[in-house]
Amino acid sequence: MTTLSADLWPDVQPETARRLMLAGVESFAERGYHATTTRDIAGAAGMSPAALYVHFPSKAALLFAISRNGHEQTLALVEDVLGRVTGPMERMRLLVEDFVAWHARRHTVARVVQYELNALPEKEYQIVAQLRRKIEQRVREVIADGVESGAFTVGDVGIAARAVLSLGVDVARWYSERTRQTPAELGKEYGELVLRMLGAS
Amino acid sequence: MTTLSADLWPDVQPETARRLMLAGVESFAERGYHATTTRDIAGAAGMSPAALYVHFPSKAALLFAISRNGHEQTLALVEDVLGRVTGPMERMRLLVEDFVAWHARRHTVARVVQYELNALPEKEYQIVAQLRRKIEQRVREVIADGVESGAFTVGDVGIAARAVLSLGVDVARWYSERTRQTPAELGKEYGELVLRMLGAS
Repeated sequence: MTTLSADLWPDVQPETARRLMLAGVESFAERGYHATTTRDIAGAAGMSPAALYVHFPSKAALLFAISRNGHEQTLALVEDVLGRVTGPMERMRLLVEDFVAWHARRHTVARVVQYELNALPEKEYQIVAQLRRKIEQRVREVIADGVESGAFTVGDVGIAARAVLSLGVDVARWYSERTRQTPAELGKEYGELVLRMLGAS
Repeated sequence: MTTLSADLWPDVQPETARRLMLAGVESFAERGYHATTTRDIAGAAGMSPAALYVHFPSKAALLFAISRNGHEQTLALVEDVLGRVTGPMERMRLLVEDFVAWHARRHTVARVVQYELNALPEKEYQIVAQLRRKIEQRVREVIADGVESGAFTVGDVGIAARAVLSLGVDVARWYSERTRQTPAELGKEYGELVLRMLGAS
């Protein structure tokens, strides 16, 4: 049986580190990064503060692990779509479906990933900002390809890319277990909305 | 000459209360509600904690004032558009232009208004939730009118309304003084994107 934390962070080892990341996500999402102490996080994970420091030298290092991993996962899903299908319409549809579904399914992780960026130390912030620029760049390229081929009609590629990502990111803010649609259903509906927004013909 | 806080909260008196709201917005946006003390806020406003309590009995009361006022302002701009123009296309275009421009121009206030809802005490949360339902209801009605008249084509009115509001709300997250477009320009561009998203013919 897979634990929740192994499901969230399949690339992180050992399980203790993943448990601390999960406790960090829950504490940061509940009270915000600045109001959470490493003692709170260790306690939520059923560990001592000393055990936390074995895996993460500071609260900022734990936030960075959560943030970097979240951005790597979303970049990976975007690149996976680009590797799997061709054509701007099909690429955009699947990209939105997966990006939206990720932000719905992982809404608590995604809130920390998207809303605690400014709490990262400068060097760590730059690494995450680089991942964000790559994600935005991929989306722009798909839109620009579509404009060139006549599949899309948009006034400003940059604003359109920002709007596409905004729709996905904001799902993390409002999605909850009580939402009527499953993450996959919401992704499908948003895929249609986005294609129309881009003037897909 | 109008002060920034009088510009932000024309309906709040006296200026001391507005200065405290501005200091609250800046402190909450910077470090989050839970990590901010009333002493921090009073200090940022150049006052004593006792002077703060004259206007707001608690930190929660100050957050509530900021949150309720922000929601009242956005509901008022939506209702203003509905009172000014008729027809679902024209209503939706202006509504998005004004809603987006407000979230860009007031992005620091809007971040607190949109992202600190869960920090409100239960009774105050319910009052704000009621304002949010009204805003969402107005947007749904415009979309439903458009679907009925054939101006719009959407799969699910509720999801479409959520997407329209999402695009505006998320502007508060990413907009900054360095953004190339002015709030009004961004509003215009988003107005076009939304009309297309709703299948406006």
